[in-house]
Amino acid sequence: MIESIRCNMARLGAELEKLSSVTEATPPAVTRVVFSDADLRARNFFKDLCRKANLRVREDGIGNIFARWQGSDPGAAAVGTGSHTDAIPNAGLYDGVVGVLGGLEAIRILQEKGFEPRRSIELLMFATEEPTRFGVGCLGSRAIAGTYDEAKILSLRDGDGRNPSEAARRIGLSGEMNALVLSRDYYDAFVELHIEQGPVLERIDLPIGIVTAIAAPASMRITFEGEGGHAGTVLMADRRDALLAGAELALAVDEIARATGSPDTVGTTGMLEVFPGAINSIPSRCMLGIDIRDTQLATRDLAVAGTKLTAREISERRALPLTIEMINSDPPATCDPRIVAAAERACEVLELKPLRMVSRAYHDSLFMARLFPTCMIFIPSRGGVSHRPDEYSSPEQIARGVEVLALTLAQLAE
Amino acid sequence: MIESIRCNMARLGAELEKLSSVTEATPPAVTRVVFSDADLRARNFFKDLCRKANLRVREDGIGNIFARWQGSDPGAAAVGTGSHTDAIPNAGLYDGVVGVLGGLEAIRILQEKGFEPRRSIELLMFATEEPTRFGVGCLGSRAIAGTYDEAKILSLRDGDGRNPSEAARRIGLSGEMNALVLSRDYYDAFVELHIEQGPVLERIDLPIGIVTAIAAPASMRITFEGEGGHAGTVLMADRRDALLAGAELALAVDEIARATGSPDTVGTTGMLEVFPGAINSIPSRCMLGIDIRDTQLATRDLAVAGTKLTAREISERRALPLTIEMINSDPPATCDPRIVAAAERACEVLELKPLRMVSRAYHDSLFMARLFPTCMIFIPSRGGVSHRPDEYSSPEQIARGVEVLALTLAQLAE
Repeated sequence: MIESIRCNMARLGAELEKLSSVTEATPPAVTRVVFSDADLRARNFFKDLCRKANLRVREDGIGNIFARWQGSDPGAAAVGTGSHTDAIPNAGLYDGVVGVLGGLEAIRILQEKGFEPRRSIELLMFATEEPTRFGVGCLGSRAIAGTYDEAKILSLRDGDGRNPSEAARRIGLSGEMNALVLSRDYYDAFVELHIEQGPVLERIDLPIGIVTAIAAPASMRITFEGEGGHAGTVLMADRRDALLAGAELALAVDEIARATGSPDTVGTTGMLEVFPGAINSIPSRCMLGIDIRDTQLATRDLAVAGTKLTAREISERRALPLTIEMINSDPPATCDPRIVAAAERACEVLELKPLRMVSRAYHDSLFMARLFPTCMIFIPSRGGVSHRPDEYSSPEQIARGVEVLALTLAQLAE
Repeated sequence: MIESIRCNMARLGAELEKLSSVTEATPPAVTRVVFSDADLRARNFFKDLCRKANLRVREDGIGNIFARWQGSDPGAAAVGTGSHTDAIPNAGLYDGVVGVLGGLEAIRILQEKGFEPRRSIELLMFATEEPTRFGVGCLGSRAIAGTYDEAKILSLRDGDGRNPSEAARRIGLSGEMNALVLSRDYYDAFVELHIEQGPVLERIDLPIGIVTAIAAPASMRITFEGEGGHAGTVLMADRRDALLAGAELALAVDEIARATGSPDTVGTTGMLEVFPGAINSIPSRCMLGIDIRDTQLATRDLAVAGTKLTAREISERRALPLTIEMINSDPPATCDPRIVAAAERACEVLELKPLRMVSRAYHDSLFMARLFPTCMIFIPSRGGVSHRPDEYSSPEQIARGVEVLALTLAQLAE
């Protein structure tokens, strides 16, 4: 077991800064939607860095990138690590990126230490972790894990009407859909370094979180159909305004999430779109995009059921036809005790006190856990802020995360 | 006084159908936003028809079109008629268009009858009646009437950041802002033919409405600023979700409009935009576009004040900063008794029973009435429907409207 290791934060910091400038928003805001020009630039930047570190790079048909450090026993199941670099509109610099560039840095400092892995160590950049383009998150890891098959992936569409295969071809990927799924013996272990995206580590002033479970998210699209008309001439008694139903439901989602009895239930209406959306027109249609999560499946599903019931009640009371479309409803994942133990041992060597915790955000690890023993390592997020330009983890916090990841990978690959 | 006249509905019907195909939506839906390619095609179509009817055509810097039938006393103040052909997204075929092409038909049947006007009769196609592009309706007539001066017009912006002068230049107009305002002796009378956009004439089965007053509209933009964040990781107690404030306000606008004591108060939230608008992001900003109208200024202003008060109460309770921007707040207009009498006399000659009524929709006549004696003539709208693809007035109803307009113009121009 390696007894000490040091992240080269000058090098990693420069790379983080470089990647943060690859954005379609005004810096410091990061907008890097999958298969956009910014995403293509980020991919090329990452692949170049991997090749400089002597990793063997391959890219699958829908854009997952695999960069392999060959072990002394190339036939043995590998040890995986990685995360994503795509970003929702107006996001920050650290979500996902810390696990990708930090994963690379972990490999480089192990190389520089003279470590020789028995199992290959493979760094992954997942495609389409964020749901911005196709309405579904973690598409790359779902494909790898086989939870979305080819037909399901090809049924998705972006705003331009392209399916993921077509959209991937736009930036020069093959779009090939066969051979996406990995076999169960491809990885012996998978571990993802990520920012917490919550306030817990900062509040209790601990540098490292070791994730024992990943929360169970569900999302749905609910549409009310009303009757449009001129805002000046249709008297109030004659109206069937679709926005009013949507407004009631958005308020109800908030109340329902607060009332499950679990402090971990969260419910958000992140999208609300009104049609035709003119100031002098009564809304004839209102579409809501709703996200509900919990660390417990039971209370999560209670909130989902409550939302559907309330939507139906509003629909009947206001006489506005309704459609409910479940976008996803995934079970939670439990992390692997062997990897948790390795990460805790890494913290011990580095004299860092870790916290066992739960992840409330969606992560590619949720789907990797379907096939492989999986775990996540968290570093603190200032103010718990995420998906915003002011998202922040300090260089010291990032360095400690990289070091814990490096020593965890070393144990798993020995 | 002309004792009989007959609209050539085959001719007018063909022209209405032709113009309805000039749309950026899928027919029968009409989307013809001012200064778009469809608007340019509509302008050219209209100017060609006017020239064929031997009218002298001029176009001002921001796109108002004037087509003049010279009278025997060219120095006398003219008689004006007209309306608009621009259309909100996903609108119908008749709003505005009936007053433009129907106004042309009224002139042609007077010409064919051998009528020789003493005063010139001038047909107007107003630019930017609909607020879609600049957030303000009736921009052309406001400019003509001088209620918006050059500075105010140039302070407006469309979605591409262009002011009305710049946007007008995009389709080949001069964009010139001087000499837009007409003098008080430019028209001796102005009369606009329009669909009712309400259900009254159809319900009591009368063919013609003669408008005695035009309702007083007000519109405003209200924005709540909240705090964004990841929908999975920010617990409910830590949130400041801007959409929830917007949802409360949209519901309040509806309640306030119903509670003024006036059955004529209408309140509509036609726009509600959420930022960043991603399903896994807590809304950090919510913008509402609100339209409030009444035939009485007092109850209209009561509803406007109630909306502002409620917005402030929501802002304080939820600790979300607020901005309130009044887009417009116009006084109602009273129609001219002399023109009302001429229109009633026209109905008498044509053996049609008219109804004296109030207009609840915004019209260019509201602003023409600031400078000139003004009146409006309404024809029925099926189901009171408007601003929708299924907006409909029958050929017979349109023909009767054109005939009443023709005999009204003849009296005013004699």
